[in-house]
Amino acid sequence: MRASRYLIATQKETPSDAEIVSHQLMLRAGMIRKLAAGLYTWLPMGLRTLRKVERIVREEMDKSGAQELLMPAVQPAELWEESGRWTEYGGELLRMSDRHGREFCFGPTHEEVITDLIRNELKSYKELPANFYQIQTKFRDERRPRFGVMRAREFIMKDAYSFHVNADSLDDTYQVMHRTYCAIFDRLGLDYRPVQADSGAIGGSASHEFHVLASSGEDDIVFSTDSGYAANIEKAEAVAPAGARPAPAEDLQEVATPDQRTIEAISAFLDIDATRTVKTLLVKAEPDAEGHEGLVALILRGDHELNEVKAENLAGIAEPLTMATDAEIEAAVGCKAGSIGPVNLPVPVIVDRSAAHLADFVCGANREGYHLTGVNWERDLPLDRVEDLRNVVEGDASPDGSGTLEIRRGIEVGHIFKLGNKYSTAMNATVLDENGKTVTMEMGCYGIGVSRIVAASIEQNHDDKGIIWPDAIAPFQVVIVTLNAHKTPSVAEAGEKLHEELTQAGYDVLLDDRKERPGVKFADMELIGIPHRFVISERGLTAGTLEYKGRRDTDKQDISISDALSHLAKASPLKNL
Amino acid sequence: MRASRYLIATQKETPSDAEIVSHQLMLRAGMIRKLAAGLYTWLPMGLRTLRKVERIVREEMDKSGAQELLMPAVQPAELWEESGRWTEYGGELLRMSDRHGREFCFGPTHEEVITDLIRNELKSYKELPANFYQIQTKFRDERRPRFGVMRAREFIMKDAYSFHVNADSLDDTYQVMHRTYCAIFDRLGLDYRPVQADSGAIGGSASHEFHVLASSGEDDIVFSTDSGYAANIEKAEAVAPAGARPAPAEDLQEVATPDQRTIEAISAFLDIDATRTVKTLLVKAEPDAEGHEGLVALILRGDHELNEVKAENLAGIAEPLTMATDAEIEAAVGCKAGSIGPVNLPVPVIVDRSAAHLADFVCGANREGYHLTGVNWERDLPLDRVEDLRNVVEGDASPDGSGTLEIRRGIEVGHIFKLGNKYSTAMNATVLDENGKTVTMEMGCYGIGVSRIVAASIEQNHDDKGIIWPDAIAPFQVVIVTLNAHKTPSVAEAGEKLHEELTQAGYDVLLDDRKERPGVKFADMELIGIPHRFVISERGLTAGTLEYKGRRDTDKQDISISDALSHLAKASPLKNL
Repeated sequence: MRASRYLIATQKETPSDAEIVSHQLMLRAGMIRKLAAGLYTWLPMGLRTLRKVERIVREEMDKSGAQELLMPAVQPAELWEESGRWTEYGGELLRMSDRHGREFCFGPTHEEVITDLIRNELKSYKELPANFYQIQTKFRDERRPRFGVMRAREFIMKDAYSFHVNADSLDDTYQVMHRTYCAIFDRLGLDYRPVQADSGAIGGSASHEFHVLASSGEDDIVFSTDSGYAANIEKAEAVAPAGARPAPAEDLQEVATPDQRTIEAISAFLDIDATRTVKTLLVKAEPDAEGHEGLVALILRGDHELNEVKAENLAGIAEPLTMATDAEIEAAVGCKAGSIGPVNLPVPVIVDRSAAHLADFVCGANREGYHLTGVNWERDLPLDRVEDLRNVVEGDASPDGSGTLEIRRGIEVGHIFKLGNKYSTAMNATVLDENGKTVTMEMGCYGIGVSRIVAASIEQNHDDKGIIWPDAIAPFQVVIVTLNAHKTPSVAEAGEKLHEELTQAGYDVLLDDRKERPGVKFADMELIGIPHRFVISERGLTAGTLEYKGRRDTDKQDISISDALSHLAKASPLKNL
Repeated sequence: MRASRYLIATQKETPSDAEIVSHQLMLRAGMIRKLAAGLYTWLPMGLRTLRKVERIVREEMDKSGAQELLMPAVQPAELWEESGRWTEYGGELLRMSDRHGREFCFGPTHEEVITDLIRNELKSYKELPANFYQIQTKFRDERRPRFGVMRAREFIMKDAYSFHVNADSLDDTYQVMHRTYCAIFDRLGLDYRPVQADSGAIGGSASHEFHVLASSGEDDIVFSTDSGYAANIEKAEAVAPAGARPAPAEDLQEVATPDQRTIEAISAFLDIDATRTVKTLLVKAEPDAEGHEGLVALILRGDHELNEVKAENLAGIAEPLTMATDAEIEAAVGCKAGSIGPVNLPVPVIVDRSAAHLADFVCGANREGYHLTGVNWERDLPLDRVEDLRNVVEGDASPDGSGTLEIRRGIEVGHIFKLGNKYSTAMNATVLDENGKTVTMEMGCYGIGVSRIVAASIEQNHDDKGIIWPDAIAPFQVVIVTLNAHKTPSVAEAGEKLHEELTQAGYDVLLDDRKERPGVKFADMELIGIPHRFVISERGLTAGTLEYKGRRDTDKQDISISDALSHLAKASPLKNL
């Protein structure tokens, strides 16, 4: 491809409304343009990368035995009413009415449509398992779209849905998809981690997220230093501290703590470490059989953070997790939030494992302006229910017993999920099993954020000059920059010849034949992030050489013109692309 | 691909709501399924063909120098208000509001979005010409979607938009696109015709449609028997009959024609040919400077049909073309529609070229129950304005002077169009020309109905057994049917071996290894329309042969197993695919 006939839409200025580096660089490198909030046009340069991501996803999905189909983007409301999500899904579902007043949505996901299709098409266990996928434009009406294509409203997703006669078969396909996702992210050239994820809300039985590691990531992901354990922060289990709880050493005392309402304040006031305190959070309880809505107390060590997903998944706690209001707290306990504690608390108490391991701790006295010190479980108050309630922190023991936990930032680019029979039950999707008995199908679903991967890759691979593409998804793998070609026919000719040679060999080549100053060309190509660069100049030609520089290299090399292809083949073997 | 692991969703029954053969066969062959009116899921078998069409379109567009990009499907109302189409476009535009109440539409076409993009990106004549295309899901909210994917609401289109500093440059690209479209439809293996089309409504200066010939087509297209002239029926010019108008031979007479109100009735009553009569149609006139809305009379030979597009394009006629109501006719003329005629008619008259060539003709007398006979132009009434008002009919002289016209049915699958500066003027899309002067860009647009091509191909290529795919877009080029393979390991093995051999050679192969009766397999594969079939049986293996049959062949051939690939290569050379 000749740059003179291609839209090179680079920009010098960093757009003011682009908050993260991938958004800034995609705009500056001329990969995308904003049409409206959360709506982006993929310019030719950006689309090349997007299509390469798509192709890798498609090839690996095909290899796994999944079958590609294409469902409509526009979906009738009736199916969403059948699954219950027409009302549940909330504001992110873009709803519309057609000219006859019938209601539709722009699909953010396709569980309903595929389940409807499969309940009509497949009748027997003999046709299972089956896994169907599509690569498609979706819409999610984010309240605050931002970060460019990282959190756009219109985006491209690969979504797959598998159907099974039983849970064992779902297990098998789930494992195949796990391996397929690893193969995809390996080929994409990304540093990523599959991590266990929470599957409580949809009621499925297993779930993994695939994260691209990047310091700008929005999610905390957790690893063991010594084992393969990895989970997202919502899921990562905080195990009970080792050993038995220390024996009580202090007496229970009530101390005046006027105006000390936070853990920090109390720790300073009493001159103790926050790890010796507990905090008491009151949340709404699940309504009882009569519909009565009470409160539940969650007890955490003072320095720990509540994990809302874990709490919400516990029996007895209302979903979604809802903190009690100040008025509700005062009505139930008789004091303000800053002074409550578990001793003689008139609501049920659930204690985090680490809090349950404390002795001689400090907590609110349930009396305005007072705290208790020297508090001990089972001596001063009962310890009926202990659960994992908190986020893990670095240094915690790994739940698999091997090593301690580290926390890093990740960008979620894939998610595999055992749906179980949530949709198949709601929509009556059944087959006949080996015994001629009607059984509800088990389902899995498997998503990849195709357009998001482009941004995530940049978050992981860039420097102050611009993007640094992995070879597999670079818009062009190699650029040939000719210097003053319009004045030097021999340079133009050598450029054309090398362009032809590398293209014939199978590389995606950009020939930068623009009438621009060398500095402009170099800066543009580094900004765009093309992994390999050859420079052809009159001086070099005289010596029979051209200049090579890899995008991550600090030094250039002069190499013989005749060695260009073999040099490139060593730096970027085609078989890996 | 093994059929046992692939969704072969064939159906015996012809679905009752499918009116045309492509719709019936796409359902029966398991290529598509209906989700809702005008919304179809592409099953794996159908998607394979769709993707092959896409690939051919993409490759030829790339070859032409066009650059692929991808614009959002969802478009903000503001841009459509700028072009004036937010109100003009009517009910086919699917409108919606996002969670913040801002208005959007699901794009049926992208002139506004691309013009907005290009006015921001391109600043100089040096960056022109430029041609951008996308292959994308569109939505058109048809009042009565039908014929499956032929007239669906959600569909896939290739749309391209070119930008130019002047009309000459637009001409050049228009010609390149014309050639590119021919290359595309040639590769698709379709019998098609490019025809001149009307471009009046958008105000562009040239337009061609590309039609797939099929007796079920909705459009009439017109060819010369002797020259390359081809146009659609709206555009095809009806030339004036040869020679001078005959001299008057009869006297003007008023005759009583009680209750004879149609051309047919009058012809029978007076025992003359309909070609000797004229009919008078009253339509609304263009409002005059004071906004007064009068009527205009259109005079056609009795056996001819009004061409509404030609009439609408004429000066003095209201757009859209609107027939006068009975009440308006009576108020203007004083009699009913069946008795009006051009003599002493109190509204302006436009006469079709053929009607203007008549002598001694019959027409209404503008008096209830009376007609005039022996009427002659310029003797009995003036002949002020003669225009081309009618549809051509078979046997008419070709407008290029060479041969006569034939009419056939076509399905429109492509359209190229010189837009001129309609959008660039409305949206102020300018560049600086060579002299540093600001000029409004010229634009062209070029569409291909990608999903529609699949249906059109079937309308042109089918028999009573099912679809007959052109090799280039068959879901699989060749099927290997193994007979009783589950009981005969040697047959299964030979099938696997041939599958491997043909796949390695580059063919898309389906191995029908299903445990079905031979008749079921043959019928399915003929219904699906796979162009080449090998059958492997125990009896054949013993003789070292297998059976080959092309989908259009009446006879099978026994060929040596070792000749299978060379036989296929002769029947379907890979280089043409």
